[in-house]
Amino acid sequence: MNSPTFHSFAIGVVTRNRKGDIIEALYPVPLLHPPEDLVRSAADVLDLGDTDNAVAAIGPGLAEDLHSRLMEAGFPQQAGLVQKLAAGKADGIACLIRQDKPPASVAEVFLKLQLLSHRLALPNSLNLDGAFGLLHNLAWTNKGAVELDELPDRQLEARLAGELLEVMSVDKFPKMTNYVVPGGVRIAHSARVRLGAYLGEGTTVMHEGFVNFNAGSAGKAMIEGRISAGVMVGEGSDLGGGCSIMGTLSGGGTEVIAVGENCLIGANAGIGFSIGDRCIIEAGLYVTAGTKVNVLDRNGKHVKTAKALELSRQNDLLFRRNSLTGAVECVPNKASIELNEELHSHN
Amino acid sequence: MNSPTFHSFAIGVVTRNRKGDIIEALYPVPLLHPPEDLVRSAADVLDLGDTDNAVAAIGPGLAEDLHSRLMEAGFPQQAGLVQKLAAGKADGIACLIRQDKPPASVAEVFLKLQLLSHRLALPNSLNLDGAFGLLHNLAWTNKGAVELDELPDRQLEARLAGELLEVMSVDKFPKMTNYVVPGGVRIAHSARVRLGAYLGEGTTVMHEGFVNFNAGSAGKAMIEGRISAGVMVGEGSDLGGGCSIMGTLSGGGTEVIAVGENCLIGANAGIGFSIGDRCIIEAGLYVTAGTKVNVLDRNGKHVKTAKALELSRQNDLLFRRNSLTGAVECVPNKASIELNEELHSHN
Amino acid sequence: MNSPTFHSFAIGVVTRNRKGDIIEALYPVPLLHPPEDLVRSAADVLDLGDTDNAVAAIGPGLAEDLHSRLMEAGFPQQAGLVQKLAAGKADGIACLIRQDKPPASVAEVFLKLQLLSHRLALPNSLNLDGAFGLLHNLAWTNKGAVELDELPDRQLEARLAGELLEVMSVDKFPKMTNYVVPGGVRIAHSARVRLGAYLGEGTTVMHEGFVNFNAGSAGKAMIEGRISAGVMVGEGSDLGGGCSIMGTLSGGGTEVIAVGENCLIGANAGIGFSIGDRCIIEAGLYVTAGTKVNVLDRNGKHVKTAKALELSRQNDLLFRRNSLTGAVECVPNKASIELNEELHSHN
Repeated sequence: MNSPTFHSFAIGVVTRNRKGDIIEALYPVPLLHPPEDLVRSAADVLDLGDTDNAVAAIGPGLAEDLHSRLMEAGFPQQAGLVQKLAAGKADGIACLIRQDKPPASVAEVFLKLQLLSHRLALPNSLNLDGAFGLLHNLAWTNKGAVELDELPDRQLEARLAGELLEVMSVDKFPKMTNYVVPGGVRIAHSARVRLGAYLGEGTTVMHEGFVNFNAGSAGKAMIEGRISAGVMVGEGSDLGGGCSIMGTLSGGGTEVIAVGENCLIGANAGIGFSIGDRCIIEAGLYVTAGTKVNVLDRNGKHVKTAKALELSRQNDLLFRRNSLTGAVECVPNKASIELNEELHSHN
Repeated sequence: MNSPTFHSFAIGVVTRNRKGDIIEALYPVPLLHPPEDLVRSAADVLDLGDTDNAVAAIGPGLAEDLHSRLMEAGFPQQAGLVQKLAAGKADGIACLIRQDKPPASVAEVFLKLQLLSHRLALPNSLNLDGAFGLLHNLAWTNKGAVELDELPDRQLEARLAGELLEVMSVDKFPKMTNYVVPGGVRIAHSARVRLGAYLGEGTTVMHEGFVNFNAGSAGKAMIEGRISAGVMVGEGSDLGGGCSIMGTLSGGGTEVIAVGENCLIGANAGIGFSIGDRCIIEAGLYVTAGTKVNVLDRNGKHVKTAKALELSRQNDLLFRRNSLTGAVECVPNKASIELNEELHSHN
Repeated sequence: MNSPTFHSFAIGVVTRNRKGDIIEALYPVPLLHPPEDLVRSAADVLDLGDTDNAVAAIGPGLAEDLHSRLMEAGFPQQAGLVQKLAAGKADGIACLIRQDKPPASVAEVFLKLQLLSHRLALPNSLNLDGAFGLLHNLAWTNKGAVELDELPDRQLEARLAGELLEVMSVDKFPKMTNYVVPGGVRIAHSARVRLGAYLGEGTTVMHEGFVNFNAGSAGKAMIEGRISAGVMVGEGSDLGGGCSIMGTLSGGGTEVIAVGENCLIGANAGIGFSIGDRCIIEAGLYVTAGTKVNVLDRNGKHVKTAKALELSRQNDLLFRRNSLTGAVECVPNKASIELNEELHSHN
């Protein structure tokens, strides 16, 4: 009885290009597993079809009907949102995803990305197959999203009016913070966190940190390095300034890397394999999956030589390069990592 | 007789949240050790109390009185500022810090941060104890600072009006350049310099550079790497692209690191200990405090093996990793560093 | 007969400081080797002098005459631009460069930078001698370019009006995307690409990528590292996150470095010498021109020890640091690099 009938639902505001195609969507209150009554009420007013995914425009007339219907059905928050749509000059839609299949429209991709950033779904838990191909490569400007073929005219018009059309990025994904700022986070520079990132409560992303879509941190974490798409960093871990977690690009393999809890990856370091809990990578050391490592025991005695990949996901390891011999070593991490909260709180 | 009666004073414009609390303050002309007459004139009009720190609102009526009083007392610049406050619709305040104690309000923290960025006080010279706890974690937007609990409504309102509320960061500290750009600097990307940074005249911060609050450069410097809180870089030094100066976080120790004059830290390199004057760290080499180093003499003869920490603050050293043996070496830096001005001037 | 009479020509919109000096110029349709008739038609109306370079203001009266003259001569696109100038409140100019000599004005420098970013000229093909000295160090704001001595007043005025003058950078060069977005590129964060960059069709610059002016990529390339001024990266090459290509600063030499086709420079790696085609630098390894390298043959047998500079521009090399001996090695790159398009397409 509690198995959800619908995957997700949201009412939102969209931008369209000159052809009328939706190119992005903001959903203030997206819902995972929405109440069945809510969806059925919306379907009474809107044409939500019967496919896996549906996107319905909420015109001025429909907005009033939908507002009444949602109030009747006991959903004042969603009704309030519709009321605002009716009053404003924005272009409103409802998006229903019945089943988590490959998305079929821009509106659906944006809903899934917002489910992630609202912490309603974990990275790698949603079907995003083909999402990249659906999204338009857009200029993200101070006046909103603009199709690239419309950009030069818009830029010139702005200049002729004595204004500036500021182009902040040219990308398929916008920055997260213009859609949602989840509770309990700091993001020192918002251009470095894409919509679709999942930032756990208590996470700080400093200026040098970066979080791609469908990636993030499980809870409190200090992110001053780069989290590639698909990568999840465990609670309490600390990514030092400029450190790199290898993605499935630029020489990385096909396996998505994970970082356990309470790890420390030093500044300018990097990993090309998954690490367990309480692991440390020394500042400046890059350990790829294929790096041969001298594994030492607690007394510094050589146990074996292994590829880093073979040490994947093991706990309590410290990786360093012996500064006198140049060899990469893996030793037990005797010290537990204490994230010094007082110090972090001053960052 | 010249011992200053007051620590600092400034008249400014503030932003308040919906509750009426001050959440940030811009002081166009902050004063360290303000003339006693100026403060007493202000106190004639405003309620500056008698505590270590005082913040007084300058309402419309008070602004006119204060303007007259400051003109009489011979302070036309501050009087002019008050006149502008009276004419505009902004929310004005005066902030007086009698003694440099731990700050007690947001207004005082912002005054101290602006004393640093106006080069009126050096990093580590002001009492900022507890400052972090006083500051609000805010959305810094194209419409100014916004409390996070007010953000979703503001974002939706903007979108419904066909506009964008651009959230540039979510942080306790804003970027410096929206408060002050000190003379003789270039900052290629302003999101990378926090308010409270101290940039010496002649400093260039390139796109990959970063300067935290209460940190900076003594004079002419080329900053393409990251300067952590508390760190001061000496005149004429050059931080290569992506280099790291370890802070007291992410595995760094508790000692704040210093960089001497005319040093060169290579691209993607890093240090976890203090270096003296005319030192070089080879590109790509990270030397932490605990790194064991082979110290060689001028003829390449091994003198001793030491931890980098033991070489702290010594002048004329060059650190490199021998590319054939993998050992980290410290040798005398025979060549003086000449910052090639013609070349730099083309950056 | 086909040897071009003129080097370049453009009609544009400028910003002036309070003194009336041009401080920047946007040219929507710059022309390399413009039709002789076009220039002569413009010269009928405007004072284009007879020096190597000419900048002529297009006042309201002149704009109408120029529009008619250009229509007559058969240049509707340029005529249309002039018509828009006449209708708007912007400050219009025409800029003619007869010969590619050192630029003599801000307007000419901006024209050359836009020729590069429009892909009309390759990096290192235009005379930019002395350009840096001509450019003003400006605040680039959400209201356009502002001279630094005018900035504090402008910032205060904005605040008093309840607005924010957002200072995005303080630099001689603006970001490219506010002037032109060439076809077929993605730029995840526009602050990292300066005007004067040349991005080949198919190039993606990710958040950690950086491209200076007079530098760029030949075609399809994935740029997650830093391309210094003068550096050209070949078609199909992949610069990993945070990698560094040493410029002629910060310890680099005077030779401008080149990267061949289908190379891979790993994350956090770096080079201080030129590499040929299909070369790989292992993640985290910095190879400067002076790095001594053990050159091995296909069977791992030691051939010679050489400085990296001696291996400059050779094809099919892989550089790595042996993780057990710490020695830097150069081995033949057996595997060809396949940029995995499906994966890249998800970045």
